[in-house]
Amino acid sequence: MDMREKKITGEVIYDGKVVKLEKDKVLCPNGNESLREIVRHPGGAAILAVTKDNEVILERQFRYAYDEVIYEIPAGKLEKGEDPYYAALREFEEETGNKTDKLISLGECYPTCGYSSEIIYLYLAENFIKTQTHFDDDEVIELEYVPLDKVVKMIENNEIKDAKTIIAITRYLIKNKSL
Amino acid sequence: MDMREKKITGEVIYDGKVVKLEKDKVLCPNGNESLREIVRHPGGAAILAVTKDNEVILERQFRYAYDEVIYEIPAGKLEKGEDPYYAALREFEEETGNKTDKLISLGECYPTCGYSSEIIYLYLAENFIKTQTHFDDDEVIELEYVPLDKVVKMIENNEIKDAKTIIAITRYLIKNKSL
Repeated sequence: MDMREKKITGEVIYDGKVVKLEKDKVLCPNGNESLREIVRHPGGAAILAVTKDNEVILERQFRYAYDEVIYEIPAGKLEKGEDPYYAALREFEEETGNKTDKLISLGECYPTCGYSSEIIYLYLAENFIKTQTHFDDDEVIELEYVPLDKVVKMIENNEIKDAKTIIAITRYLIKNKSL
Repeated sequence: MDMREKKITGEVIYDGKVVKLEKDKVLCPNGNESLREIVRHPGGAAILAVTKDNEVILERQFRYAYDEVIYEIPAGKLEKGEDPYYAALREFEEETGNKTDKLISLGECYPTCGYSSEIIYLYLAENFIKTQTHFDDDEVIELEYVPLDKVVKMIENNEIKDAKTIIAITRYLIKNKSL
């Protein structure tokens, strides 16, 4: 069966700094009509950095949507038309003060498929050298180097909840046959 | 340091069926002002169901935001004020045609912390009995029972990209000391 939903009409509700909100009327494959509210997002790139001592670089950052400081791996949104690989190289250096010339893909994730088009591209950095952080004007980030086994514990006990962070670690562990 | 951002002014851009979009001007802890576009979402509940034969119930569903049929575990959004545990019980039966009276928490995930307030509550179902599916009018879902080791492969090779699905499996594997 063709499972596709076909657009009947569409409306742009808001076109902002980061997100664009669209409201479309669609025809479902079962013949019913429905409404889809979709956040269009440029996508993001996130970097799991693991040191030679098996430590993961985690960030602590206040997230306004949750009114909470949470743990995440370094990440940033893509500029218009930007290759996620280069966005990842840039964000990694800006946010952690480390530079690498080689990232390994850890695939992609779809954070919340019901209403957002965002794709987060995940990368692994294993060799990097110290440079300098360059935060954006509205970024306040604290860095922690946390042993990988402790990070796994933090995922287990719900201390790490951020999707991209957990998925990057999962793909890394599978890749290394630890899963 | 207090890392909180403080709201200066707020505006509701859109209040819809599933999402509400707000635009707030905030004061960052470094003294700068910034804009936060936040999607307010009622939250969701998702269920990792593992059979006695170690098969995972996956759904194939067309997702309009990606124009793509993807693999996911059963899930649904919370009704206003609903306990996620009961939402999970309901969605599990409606979408898979299986009934359980016991779910085990697999914690929560924050799918995309930069612009959404959504929390997805994750549960494990291990004992269930066949009943009947009851799809929503706009839901077209195909079910597949997939061996757990194959699901892990599908996460590795990027065939499964959905955040809640990968995170539920990860927490399950950690819980079972397979990670």
